[in-house]
Amino acid sequence: MPTQFVHFPENQPLAMDAGVLLAPLTIAYQTYGTLNADKSNAVLICHALTGDQHVANIHPVTGKPGWWGTMVGPGRPIDTDRYFVICSNVVGGCMGTTGPTSLNPATGKAYGLDLPVVTIRDMVRAQAMLIDHLGIDQLFCVAGGSMGGMQVLQWAALYPERVFAAMPIAAAARHSSQNIAFHEVGRQAIMADPDWRGGRYIDQGIKPHKGLAVARMAAHITYLSDEALQRKFGRRYQDREAPTFSFDADFQVESYLRYQGSTFVERFDANSYLYVTRAMDYFDLAEDYGGVLANAFKGSRTRFCVTSFTSDWLFPTADSRAIVHALNASGASVSFVEIETDRGHDAFLLNVPELFATSRGFLEAAARARGIAPKVKSS
Amino acid sequence: MPTQFVHFPENQPLAMDAGVLLAPLTIAYQTYGTLNADKSNAVLICHALTGDQHVANIHPVTGKPGWWGTMVGPGRPIDTDRYFVICSNVVGGCMGTTGPTSLNPATGKAYGLDLPVVTIRDMVRAQAMLIDHLGIDQLFCVAGGSMGGMQVLQWAALYPERVFAAMPIAAAARHSSQNIAFHEVGRQAIMADPDWRGGRYIDQGIKPHKGLAVARMAAHITYLSDEALQRKFGRRYQDREAPTFSFDADFQVESYLRYQGSTFVERFDANSYLYVTRAMDYFDLAEDYGGVLANAFKGSRTRFCVTSFTSDWLFPTADSRAIVHALNASGASVSFVEIETDRGHDAFLLNVPELFATSRGFLEAAARARGIAPKVKSS
Repeated sequence: MPTQFVHFPENQPLAMDAGVLLAPLTIAYQTYGTLNADKSNAVLICHALTGDQHVANIHPVTGKPGWWGTMVGPGRPIDTDRYFVICSNVVGGCMGTTGPTSLNPATGKAYGLDLPVVTIRDMVRAQAMLIDHLGIDQLFCVAGGSMGGMQVLQWAALYPERVFAAMPIAAAARHSSQNIAFHEVGRQAIMADPDWRGGRYIDQGIKPHKGLAVARMAAHITYLSDEALQRKFGRRYQDREAPTFSFDADFQVESYLRYQGSTFVERFDANSYLYVTRAMDYFDLAEDYGGVLANAFKGSRTRFCVTSFTSDWLFPTADSRAIVHALNASGASVSFVEIETDRGHDAFLLNVPELFATSRGFLEAAARARGIAPKVKSS
Repeated sequence: MPTQFVHFPENQPLAMDAGVLLAPLTIAYQTYGTLNADKSNAVLICHALTGDQHVANIHPVTGKPGWWGTMVGPGRPIDTDRYFVICSNVVGGCMGTTGPTSLNPATGKAYGLDLPVVTIRDMVRAQAMLIDHLGIDQLFCVAGGSMGGMQVLQWAALYPERVFAAMPIAAAARHSSQNIAFHEVGRQAIMADPDWRGGRYIDQGIKPHKGLAVARMAAHITYLSDEALQRKFGRRYQDREAPTFSFDADFQVESYLRYQGSTFVERFDANSYLYVTRAMDYFDLAEDYGGVLANAFKGSRTRFCVTSFTSDWLFPTADSRAIVHALNASGASVSFVEIETDRGHDAFLLNVPELFATSRGFLEAAARARGIAPKVKSS
C-alpha cells in the first residue's frame, strides 16, 4: 500500500513544546495488516533518526526493502497477519510529514529553519493525533529502536492508558553528553557547507550534500562497534594490493563510509537532520517528572520489554538498565534482555535471532493477556 | 630556548616509504636540559597528531604551556635537570618541519598535496637524521603517547641499538578500522570545505577553517570518554536555564566542542591534518615483519614500559596488551601498567599521578642501568 496522508487543518494544530501551534499539519504513514473489530490489535512502530514510515515495504526512493522488514511482516515477530501495524514519518522528517521542507503557509516557501524546533514529545503528540484519526483508543503495542525507543518511552509516560505494551529497544530515557556531542558535529558539518545557505537551500535549488555526507559518515561510525568494523573491514585494502600513498579510499572502511555518505544524501534532507538530531538531544524524560524517571511511569499498567545489545556504545546497556530500574521503582511490569552481539547499535535493525525470539515471546504473551485472537493458520 | 632548525640539503634527502627522496628537509626542534659528556642522557619525545615540538615551553602561537609540561621539566618524571630532552616537529607537520605548507622547490609554491604521503617510519627516519646531526649514537629513552607511541615502537623496531629504553603510552602497533574511519571523516570534512581548494588554499590566501574545525570536533570526542563527558558537562545548559528551542549551543558540551574547533584552526594547518592522520592510518608495524609483531622486536635489548588507560576507547588497553604480548614473545624486557581513570585517551596529556609515578620509576631504574649520574640535589 502506498503512503497515506492525513491533513490536520488550521483549527487542529499541534501544540509544540517550543510554545507554538503548528498548523496545518500533514502526517504521512504506512499501515500493514488489518485492524480487528474491537480495534485492539494496533501496533505503532516508531522510527529512528534517519528512518521513515517505510517499515516493511520497498522504499520508494532507494528501491530497497523497508528498514525493519526482518521484524515486521507476515509471520515475523510483529506479525502483520495478526496485528495492524502503523508507522508514521516523524514531525520534522522529510518523507511526507510536516518538516523543514514543507511549505510554510506564512511565506509560501519551504519552512527551512522557520519550523519550530521539534521534540520527541511533539513527535508523539502528532502520532496520537493520527491514532485518534484512525479511531483507535488503545495501542496494543508501541515499539521502536534508538530514537524510536525514546518515542516508545514518551508514549508510555504521556498516554499510559493508550499503551498496552511497550518495546523500547537500544534506547535511553535521556540523550548522553557524548551523543549530543556527536550530533553537534553532524550539525556543524551541515551548517559549514556553503550550499546550506543558512537553511534556505531549497529556495535556491541546491542541497548541502557534502556537509550532510560528512554528518552521516561520523554518525555511521557510532552505529557500529569497534569489533564489528574490525571483523567486517579490518585494515583490508579496497581493490588494491598495497597502499597508494595518497588520500584515495585505500582502505575498505573508507570506501564503505564514503558510500554511506553518498547514498544517504539521496534520500534525506539536511535540515531534517538538524531537527531530528535536536529532538533527540533535548530528550530527557525524567526532567518532566521532577528529575525522577520512575515518576514518569507511576501507576503504569503498561507491560514493558526493554532490550539492549552488549556492543552498543551509543545507547549502552547502562541506559536500558536505568529505564528498567525506574520501571521497577514505579512498580511497572518489565522484562529486560541484554543481547550478546558484536554488531553495535545497528543490531536493532539487523538479523539478530535473539531479538526476534524475545520480541515474539513478549508479544505473544501480551496478545493473550489482551485477548487478541490467535493467528489463523492457513492450511 | 626558541625553536632550533636543522636544514638537510639536496644531497642529504629523506628516503620516504612512498618511494621518493624528499630534499631539502628542515627539522624544527626544541631541547631542554644539557647533554652530558658521554651523550648518554638524551630523551627523545615524540608528539601526537596535533602536537608539536613545544613540549615544555610556552607555545609561540597559543601562549599556553607546552603540551607535556606535566611530564617534562625540572623535577618532573622526565627530569630536564638530569636528561637532555629533544622534541622535533614531525615531517608533514606545520610548526617548522617540512610539511605541506613548506615551499616546494620544484614550483616555488607551498607543497600542498604535492608533498609525498608521509608514514610513521618516515617521521622516525627524519628524527634519526636529527639525532645524528646532534652527534648522539644512542637515545637513553624514546617516549610518547598516541601517535607519539607509534613512533616509539617504530624507533625500537627500526633502530634497536639506538634505543636504550622506550615508553609507548596509550598507543597501538597498528591503527584500527574504527580509527581509520574517524580519520577519514575528518579528512572528508576538510576536503568538503570549498576553501580547501584542492589543497591549494595557501596560494590563494584562504584557509578551510570550517572543515578543519568540524574535523577537530569529531576527533575531540574520541579523545574523551563517555564518562568524562558526562561528568564534565552532562546535559547542563550553557549560560541559560532552559533550552532555547534553536540550534544554538544550548548545552555546555556543544559550546565546549565549538570552542575546541575554533581554537584549533588558529594553530594547525588543514593539509598537515590530512598528512598526519594518513600516517597513522598506514601504521601497521607487524606488516613489515611478516605479519608477526614479535618479529619487529626480535633480539631487542631495549627496555619497554607500556602504559594504557582503562577508559581509552581510541587506543584501548587491548592494543597495548598486543604490544606487550609481542614483546614477551620476542623475549624483550617489558613492564606494563593499565591505569584506572575515566579521562579517556587524553589521560596521557593530563595530570594523572599514576602515570607520573610509573614513568619516574621506570626511568630511574633505566638510568641506573645506563649509568647516568643521579641528579645533584641543590642545597
